[in-house]
Amino acid sequence: MAKINTNFLNLGESYLFVEIARRVRAYKEANPDRDVISLGIGDVTLPLADAVVKEMEKASAEMGKAETFKGYGPEKGYEFLASAIAKQDFEARGVEISTDEIFISDGAKSDCGNIGDIFSTDSITLVSEPAYPVYVDASIMTGRQVKFVKCTPENGFLPVPPDFKSDLIFLCSPNNPTGAVMDKALLKKWVDYALSCGAVIVFDAAYESFISDDTLPHTIYEVEGAKKCAIEIRSFSKTAGFTGVRCGYTVVPKELTAKDDNGNEVSLNKLWNRRQSTKFNGASYISERAAYAVYTEEGRAQCKELVKYYMNNAKVIKKAVSELGWESTGGDNSPYIWLKCPNGMRSWDFFDKLLTEANVVGTPGSGFGEAGEGWFRLTSFGNADKTVEAVERIKKIFG
Amino acid sequence: MAKINTNFLNLGESYLFVEIARRVRAYKEANPDRDVISLGIGDVTLPLADAVVKEMEKASAEMGKAETFKGYGPEKGYEFLASAIAKQDFEARGVEISTDEIFISDGAKSDCGNIGDIFSTDSITLVSEPAYPVYVDASIMTGRQVKFVKCTPENGFLPVPPDFKSDLIFLCSPNNPTGAVMDKALLKKWVDYALSCGAVIVFDAAYESFISDDTLPHTIYEVEGAKKCAIEIRSFSKTAGFTGVRCGYTVVPKELTAKDDNGNEVSLNKLWNRRQSTKFNGASYISERAAYAVYTEEGRAQCKELVKYYMNNAKVIKKAVSELGWESTGGDNSPYIWLKCPNGMRSWDFFDKLLTEANVVGTPGSGFGEAGEGWFRLTSFGNADKTVEAVERIKKIFG
Repeated sequence: MAKINTNFLNLGESYLFVEIARRVRAYKEANPDRDVISLGIGDVTLPLADAVVKEMEKASAEMGKAETFKGYGPEKGYEFLASAIAKQDFEARGVEISTDEIFISDGAKSDCGNIGDIFSTDSITLVSEPAYPVYVDASIMTGRQVKFVKCTPENGFLPVPPDFKSDLIFLCSPNNPTGAVMDKALLKKWVDYALSCGAVIVFDAAYESFISDDTLPHTIYEVEGAKKCAIEIRSFSKTAGFTGVRCGYTVVPKELTAKDDNGNEVSLNKLWNRRQSTKFNGASYISERAAYAVYTEEGRAQCKELVKYYMNNAKVIKKAVSELGWESTGGDNSPYIWLKCPNGMRSWDFFDKLLTEANVVGTPGSGFGEAGEGWFRLTSFGNADKTVEAVERIKKIFG
Repeated sequence: MAKINTNFLNLGESYLFVEIARRVRAYKEANPDRDVISLGIGDVTLPLADAVVKEMEKASAEMGKAETFKGYGPEKGYEFLASAIAKQDFEARGVEISTDEIFISDGAKSDCGNIGDIFSTDSITLVSEPAYPVYVDASIMTGRQVKFVKCTPENGFLPVPPDFKSDLIFLCSPNNPTGAVMDKALLKKWVDYALSCGAVIVFDAAYESFISDDTLPHTIYEVEGAKKCAIEIRSFSKTAGFTGVRCGYTVVPKELTAKDDNGNEVSLNKLWNRRQSTKFNGASYISERAAYAVYTEEGRAQCKELVKYYMNNAKVIKKAVSELGWESTGGDNSPYIWLKCPNGMRSWDFFDKLLTEANVVGTPGSGFGEAGEGWFRLTSFGNADKTVEAVERIKKIFG
């Protein structure tokens, strides 16, 4: 008799962003005349860079000719893309990563969700909270015990290694949802902690391109020892607006190992390779070519402009939040502004008030875990004019 | 201390097609002047249909304009594609499937690999052998016990329900690798078996478009009761040459349930929706639009031509195999020809002989499980002239 994976019953009713979409849809249906502005899900709004579009059109045309048609690609992605990544995302920052340590995928969300496949389900998972829901939900789905390190105003929303041991650690910097960014010294503490208890860090660096402060690390491998304890996950979604294109990648250093039942060290690079070549068939060729365009001179310059545009929105939101006298963090080296709900409101109450009164959609902090209750996330991924209008509406209601 | 998922240690050294690629690469490096023809991995060779390419170019261009840009799509895919699927793949065959029962993904391989996530790891998995390696490997990765139903020349390589119970059943028809196709009466036996022991069938129908015999079922839902016991997985890879585009879908009927620990029935449609919205972020918009083009009048006609071309290759291979007096199956309603290695050779020995003497690549039957030892798979996905040349070479050596 087929039995379900009962771990699913321990999950919240629905994935955070699905619930937000549901409430927004219901409101819009009841109020079709209202112009609802979303500073919510963290989806981008600017079109793809011209260089990326041209490359996708070229790749599409190639697929229509026998001489240039591409069938199955390598499960771990094409060398042309891996080489560009190795060179520009790592070598340029003084980090040596070889192409066989890079696994290109259909996106960071898939990788964050699937990476647990190669670890024991007995692993104690440590998550800095508030957190992107996928780390916790995917862990719960496999029955893993999840422990939290709380990020609060008191520690500047920056997670500090705990005084207990763990096995698998999810860290995200620049952080989603708080926008807080770890400096090298703090990351070094995490690397030391991981090395001391033999844990593996899964470092989500999806927002690294929003870092403007030159002293901050863009990759965990800028910290000594990280290759012995860390996997890094990257996304093109926010860097280059690929939320609908689907491409990301994961770095699993060859020197990274974990133990089997007999205490033998097993290469995690080999295990992830086995996982991906068995349960994945490579990212779309068009998407990989699109990602490749991000690394061309033209593409790089154009994507920088996208980031600049969004960071200007971040400034607009930050300024308004500050004028309202609301406590907040983020928005300097990250696209997210994390603010304390006014008048001691709870996150979902503030969400509903903002939606129904200001017609602005944000993300309830409690959706990122208990530590986020009473907090709220606004994103800078909106249209510039709409962002200005949204903050005006917010100021009118709460000012 | 991080511990690995030790179930991975129970897997064979490398995924079948990775091992084939390795041997072929080694041979080519040592013999750069040889023209090696692949009738191996099952990758297609014809370029995409014109209608598909045009739609991808259009979708790419849309992504470059603010008014038509698409960010995150629905995790389960766009309605425009799900509607076309519901209508043409199911309604046209008298089967009612609603769009919220359709989950569009980056491909059938991912779905075959990930579907196990929603079932208990205690599930006894039943696989008809020889089989596409993903069913078994993905099951082993989660520690599931796998039992086999052997397909042999005696039963025409058609699996028959066993006399023991199981929980999760993988069936593939038209079959990869044997090319054998189950008729409605046999499928009905499987549906009855599944209903009698409360098992769930995962029906891989990736090759349904190669069926030419009108009496054969294209979807398991043509069989009464199947909606209560079966999930169906479909691919555009062979139907429309999408091996590099990446798009497929999975149908999970709303009436399909499995039990929790207390014997309560839980909707598998809801569980799979939760899995996909948590660990997946939708297929590429370009790929979904490409798939949509397959359902247009023009696209449908063009894709039929692709299938016709490959089925002509199948005829060529089948004829040669028959002239050589080799026992074989498949090739009539499927793109695969499954043959008995001559002179009692073992599968990998025949592979090496074929590669080094005829410079033709095929797939060793033993790679599909023990029941495939001594057998070999040739595919009709090659170029027509190359296929003719390949069989000429084979005839020269073995004739």
